[in-house]
Parts: sequence; structure tokens; C-alpha cells
Amino acid sequence: MWDRFLRACRREPVDATPVWFMRQAGRYMAEYRELRKKHTLIELCKSPELATKVTLQPVNALGVDAAILFADILLPLEPMGAPFEFAAGEGPVIHEPVRDQAGVDKLRLFPPEEGLGYVLDAIRMIRRELDGKTPLIGFAGAPFTLASYLIEGARSKEYAITKRMMYREPAMWHALMEKLAEVVRRYLLAQVEAGAQAIQLFDSWIGALSPDDYATFIQRHVRHILADVEKTGVPVIHFGTGTAMLLELQKQAGGTVIGIDARTPLDLAWSRLGYDVAVQGNLDNLLLDAPPELLSLRVKDVLRRAAGRPGHIFNLGHGILPETNPDSVKFVVDLVHTETSRAVS
Amino acid sequence: MWDRFLRACRREPVDATPVWFMRQAGRYMAEYRELRKKHTLIELCKSPELATKVTLQPVNALGVDAAILFADILLPLEPMGAPFEFAAGEGPVIHEPVRDQAGVDKLRLFPPEEGLGYVLDAIRMIRRELDGKTPLIGFAGAPFTLASYLIEGARSKEYAITKRMMYREPAMWHALMEKLAEVVRRYLLAQVEAGAQAIQLFDSWIGALSPDDYATFIQRHVRHILADVEKTGVPVIHFGTGTAMLLELQKQAGGTVIGIDARTPLDLAWSRLGYDVAVQGNLDNLLLDAPPELLSLRVKDVLRRAAGRPGHIFNLGHGILPETNPDSVKFVVDLVHTETSRAVS
Repeated sequence: MWDRFLRACRREPVDATPVWFMRQAGRYMAEYRELRKKHTLIELCKSPELATKVTLQPVNALGVDAAILFADILLPLEPMGAPFEFAAGEGPVIHEPVRDQAGVDKLRLFPPEEGLGYVLDAIRMIRRELDGKTPLIGFAGAPFTLASYLIEGARSKEYAITKRMMYREPAMWHALMEKLAEVVRRYLLAQVEAGAQAIQLFDSWIGALSPDDYATFIQRHVRHILADVEKTGVPVIHFGTGTAMLLELQKQAGGTVIGIDARTPLDLAWSRLGYDVAVQGNLDNLLLDAPPELLSLRVKDVLRRAAGRPGHIFNLGHGILPETNPDSVKFVVDLVHTETSRAVS
Repeated sequence: MWDRFLRACRREPVDATPVWFMRQAGRYMAEYRELRKKHTLIELCKSPELATKVTLQPVNALGVDAAILFADILLPLEPMGAPFEFAAGEGPVIHEPVRDQAGVDKLRLFPPEEGLGYVLDAIRMIRRELDGKTPLIGFAGAPFTLASYLIEGARSKEYAITKRMMYREPAMWHALMEKLAEVVRRYLLAQVEAGAQAIQLFDSWIGALSPDDYATFIQRHVRHILADVEKTGVPVIHFGTGTAMLLELQKQAGGTVIGIDARTPLDLAWSRLGYDVAVQGNLDNLLLDAPPELLSLRVKDVLRRAAGRPGHIFNLGHGILPETNPDSVKFVVDLVHTETSRAVS
């Protein structure tokens, strides 16, 4: 069933639980590492041909039920006027972190076809290559997660500079969030226009905040994005990590599917969210490195917690790590399909 | 009331809600920075005179209701045979990370008076100096948090190497945890013997795990420590961050007080834990950098959620950061006391 993933997003019955993986195109695959010997990460993103190739690798090798665009959540920062690079083994570095009103003022809105045309070209090319056999997910980073990189200048553990701006300079904070939200809104609408059949919004680091902070400083900006993306009719997956206490607020902000962190039991999360929304998740990504007995036990546990209810998309709680064995990933795809195979009337 | 903190730990009525701060002795204080110009962190820990001086600084300057021993959770690693150092601005570095059975086998148990006698001397000296005016909290790191440093060799964001050992080599994992738990158990009992009037167990990074992993790989080792420490009769604060989904399991493992992360609303945490246990927390540490209006609002919100119920100790969700203004910390101490001042029959 080619549209098993899209049907599950809409909570329709499916012949087997769909499965895909965050970072399913990445360094754990030999084919990807080969390409990275010749090209930087950014080069792969900026070449529609290479991005297409990388996007398709796991679809062909693993039999996942969705392709996800190969790109990086930070790409919009460059056309906004905040260039960055990936330092070797260090993660991203923003050359001039945004820490004052002048920095916020300098950030530009831009037409996605101009600033990120290469991503949209990749989407069109991937859709042609997939030829209707597997649906394509587009994505973007959410405003808080993008802001945390913009402000800290790199990955962070405590988000101290980010939270300080949020608490001390709420007007500046909201101005920054509004710009980021508007950039992301236009970018995602352009992705849908170019052919993305579902969208995932990555608020990967939102778990740094309390529910009060989410409600006060974040929620309206996420809603600004998702309200319009949902109007296009494509399913929207709203994802974060460390979100045990944020799920209800995230649902209010939008999403046809809520992504569940590996540390929040799926049944508990779903019962709190309500069954009028689909859920995605939530195997710990390190369990892919566990022996088959434990891995199998935990995959089945996730499925047991989903209880065969329509609207579960199997995934990890976060992205696949570079050291992961691709055989283990394939094992999970097959196990999920076998365990959940059923007739659909 | 000198024992307001100890009474609150036992859920007895108090004249005002007690307040202390994790890392209340630290770089945010000018007096501490002066000492650090002349001594390394480890030198301060290893000199009972200096550790006493640093422990007392915030007690005198801020009027907090408890002193906490100045020490570091990693100190037991050295007498175990796993030396480390603090690289400038980088956090701790373990010279030979423990990643195989030989590494686990090499770790030694040791008599606390031999391996960590300087800490016990500091406790005795601090007790003399405090002269019964303020109670003294001793502490140690919990097995998972210590193991994460031992295995990763430094701070980590994903705990990939740690989780991999846990999932792949459960026998090795449990052997390591047993050694760490036994070291910590003896160390904490020796701290109580030396005069610590309460104990905090820091499982700072436990929030990386799911409830299933906590129950399978962690809980029994924490219980091994806390069962015996609780028998001494001193209150035990069981603390972690990112623990929204772990609270009930942590309570089962032990503790007269459960430390609540800033991202879990205090009222929700307490109602889930049950009112037969005290709670500590849970202001976001970055709110100390917020303007007084917001800071005041959020302090009062924590107090409102505690609802005047006996058994609340005010604290942050995690430690004070170096950039924090001491005036802000003092402001919170006074505000908590003023807001909660009441007659006790």
C-alpha cells in the first residue's frame, strides 16, 4: 500500500503500520558516506541531484514507507542573513550569533524560490523519481529550535543565552520568533507547492522549556506556521524531544500527527493527547544498537502501546546515529510490518 | 527557625518555606571567584579549610536555610581508579573512559575515610563552623550520572556510548552500576557519620532514559544506596532533571524528598508522587536572570503550586549559573520567606 504513511497520518485504517526514521538518509549508510567523501553536507543539500540521490537511498535499501527530503533545518538561516557552517565533528557554527535588536532587525524575510530554490528543485526532482511509489515528507525547523542555534551560535546544553533573551527582552524575542515563524511558514508552503506530501516541523530542542514558557513565548509562533500549512491539506507532523510536559500545548499549536519522544511511553502520550490526533514514534534511537532480542522486545512494546489504533506511525524518538548498523534499521522495518500486517476492508 | 529545612523534609509545619539553591556556592559569587583565582576547583574540594569557607559564603551572604557541602560529584572516581580533571571551560575529562569489562574490573571500592577523607574532614569542620545555626546537606552523584561521565569520558548530549553499553552488555553494565552504587552508599553513610544532616543524591542526567530503561537498568542500584541512607534517619533528597516520566519510579527507589525539574509543574509532580513525600524545586535557573517582575511572578507561581502544603523546599530546577547576579538570588530568598511567613502552633 503506497500511501500507508499518509493514511495513518489521517488515522485511516492501513494494511500495516507505516515506518520511517528520522535521519534515515545519513552517515550510518555506506552509500551516504561515499558521497560525503566527495561533498560537504551543504553541497549535498544545495545540489538537487545529490539531495535526490541521498533521499532515495534508504527508500530503496530499507523499504521504509516514506521518503524524507534530504536537507538541514538550518538552511533558511543563510538567506535570512545569518550564514553558518558545519565545523568538522562539532555541529553547526553560526558566524554572527543574533543577540541584540540590531541582529534581529538585520534578519531578512525572503521568497523561498529565491533563497531556497535548490530545496524546492530537489523536492520536484524527488517526486519525479519516486513516481508515486512512496510519499515524500518535507520539513523545517521550528522557531525555538532555530532561534537556539541563532542565539547560542552552536549546539547548547542549557540554552542559557537563549532563555536569557526570552526572559529579559520579550519584545525582541517575539520579534525574532515572528521573523523565524514567517520564514518557516513561507518555506513550508513552498515545499507543499513543490510537491511535499506531508510536512514535519522539528522543534527538536523545545524540551528545554516549561509549559508556562511554551505557552508564553512559543505557542503562538508555531500556530502561525501550522495553521496555514494544515490548510493545504497535507498532514503535518509536529515533533520535539523532551516534550513529556508539552504535548497538549503542542497539539493546540497544530499538527495532524504529534511526534513522541522515546522517554514518554507512547500509550500515555496518546491518551493524554486524545485519539483525535495521530502519533509518531517512539523507539529510543540507541536501541538500534541493542542485540536483536532486546530490540525486538522494545519494538513490540511500542506497537503494543499503540494498540493497533489507526493513526500510529512507527519511528524513533530522535534521529538515527552515524554508528548504527543499517541491518538493524532494516530489521525494524520488517518487524513492524510483519507484526502489524492486517487485512483492510 | 534554624531547622525549617529539616522540618520541611519531614513534611512538618514550618514558619516559612525553606529555600536553598543547587550550586549556591559557586562562580556567581565574587568571593568564590576570588578564591578560584588562587586555587583550582579540585584544590578547593581537597582542602577542608577552603571547602568550609566556600560552603559558608552563601549561608552568610544570602540567608539560605541550608548549607550544602562544597564538593564535586566526580570526586569518588579518583579513589576508584578513574582519575579526571576539569579542562578550562570544558567540564570534566576522564583520562581513561571505562568501556569494557577490564575497565569495570579495575574500578576499586575503597574506605571513604581513606579515599575521600578530605570531604569528611570538611563536613566535620563545616558543622563546627555552622554551630547548629544552619543544617548541612551532604551529597553524591547517582550511579547513572557517574557512569555517564565514566563511560563517555566527558559531558554528553546523547549518552550514546553509555546507552550502548547498557543495551548491549547488561551484565557489564550492572557490574559497573553495582560498584558505583556501593561506593556511593558507603560514601553517603560516611558523610552522615561525619555530620551531614541531610543528603542529596544527584541523578542529574537520568532524564536521558525512558521509564522502562530506568526500571530495568537503574532503579535497583539507586535503591541499594538509598535504603541504607534512609535508615540513618537523615532526610534524603532524590534529584534529577528531565524526570517528568520518571518521578514515580524515583520515589520507589527512595527519598524523603523528590527534586523536581523546572519543566515539570510542581503541583502536577506532587499530585502524581503523592503527598506522602516532600518535594523540592523548581524555578528555572535562568529565571534568576529575568527582570524582577517576571522573576517574582514565577517564584510566586511555584509557591502557589506548592499550595502551602507542608513538605515543600524551594529551590531551582538545576544549579545556579556563573553569570547570575547574587542580588537576584538574595531577592528570591527574601521573597520566598516573606510570601510564606506564617505562625506555627
